[in-house]
Amino acid sequence: MHRRTAAIIVIGNEILNGKSEDKNAAFLISELRRLGVALSRITVIPDDLDDIARTVRECAARFDYIFTSGGVGPTHDDLTIEGIARAFGRAVVRNPELERMLKGYFGDDIDETRLRMADMPEGGLLIREREMRWPVLAIENVYILPGVPELFRSKFEAISHLFQAEPFYACAIYTREDEFDIAPRLNRVAAAHPDVEIGSYPVFTEPDYRVKITIESKETEAVERARCALLDALDSDSVVRTE
Amino acid sequence: MHRRTAAIIVIGNEILNGKSEDKNAAFLISELRRLGVALSRITVIPDDLDDIARTVRECAARFDYIFTSGGVGPTHDDLTIEGIARAFGRAVVRNPELERMLKGYFGDDIDETRLRMADMPEGGLLIREREMRWPVLAIENVYILPGVPELFRSKFEAISHLFQAEPFYACAIYTREDEFDIAPRLNRVAAAHPDVEIGSYPVFTEPDYRVKITIESKETEAVERARCALLDALDSDSVVRTE
Repeated sequence: MHRRTAAIIVIGNEILNGKSEDKNAAFLISELRRLGVALSRITVIPDDLDDIARTVRECAARFDYIFTSGGVGPTHDDLTIEGIARAFGRAVVRNPELERMLKGYFGDDIDETRLRMADMPEGGLLIREREMRWPVLAIENVYILPGVPELFRSKFEAISHLFQAEPFYACAIYTREDEFDIAPRLNRVAAAHPDVEIGSYPVFTEPDYRVKITIESKETEAVERARCALLDALDSDSVVRTE
Repeated sequence: MHRRTAAIIVIGNEILNGKSEDKNAAFLISELRRLGVALSRITVIPDDLDDIARTVRECAARFDYIFTSGGVGPTHDDLTIEGIARAFGRAVVRNPELERMLKGYFGDDIDETRLRMADMPEGGLLIREREMRWPVLAIENVYILPGVPELFRSKFEAISHLFQAEPFYACAIYTREDEFDIAPRLNRVAAAHPDVEIGSYPVFTEPDYRVKITIESKETEAVERARCALLDALDSDSVVRTE
């Protein structure tokens, strides 16, 4: 079973300088999780043409799906389309269908600034779904989404069915034992179960447990085998609960 | 005036799979801003040795300061020290001073698992500040911080004076004009004032304005010049306020 991977590239000085808080990555984390896609990287970069081109090129080569957020408006700091085109060595071209849509929408207000919204990397695709007024642009494995959270969300929701994969199975064990004490046993179980991902998260602010151990995989039996092995290895009196 | 740049590398599967929400990047965004350091990149990566090594190596070569968050505990998924050592082609060695401190702290409970907390990349430094019980490890321009938010925060606050730079000057203009309408004027002013960073952020949820325009620089006069040029270029009846 091929494990689908994804990367999110958030583009915008306003995130890095603290003027605006990114909400799109957090939204996509939970959406991709729900879809069964393994998110492998989130990168936040400035409105810089070279940085966009380089980051998109690297991610597109390593992961199955790339989602970009931001940088698609009409002003000087909106460089995403040009950066993505450069990542793939493509020209930026005006799409006749988008141009028609813009002329229909803006009527007499149409001008060169508004027409720039019809520009896309050569060879890109328009993804149309019934509920969308405006298509999502994609090129190769890169899906180009706007930074405004309401638009990012509605556009992703409209195309999310394209990314549906096998679900993840997960469980968690909460223990009162100290992470230093369980580490050798945990490491042994993790080494013996390479088909699952085991995480160990110490907490200092919970009154009833000290470590949350998580197990996950795309195979429910593998999760169950690792869960049993961990419960065997842990001091049973210290296990607060499993979920 | 050399503009100091920084990158944050958040390391942890739990962030990417949505089991835990990262708070450290948001904290560091505002701290670096306050210190006058330009944050140039945030990357969230999994607990993967090669990915850590590669990401640290690339960032360390491009930016002045690198801050890592997470992956420094005793379990199999704590790979940050080894990954950073690999980034710089160094061995992981046990630091005698940290070893002494651990033995003093844990007494008879000391074991190989706990002693692993004394491991660091060869040639690394221990940064000690009075209020810290445990030093911060650094190697080259990489500062290694724990993922637990309370610890991340207190450790960064203890060493933050090391990164103090010239402050940023910024202002904002709020206008009722449409972003498409002001874009040509905005682009002209931005091109004429390359010494400032101008941002344009359309909003759809505010009742009293449609675009927030931001101007920033390390030179207060440059911000003031660009602010005047922008106010000249914008329709003055539509400017709601400046700040």
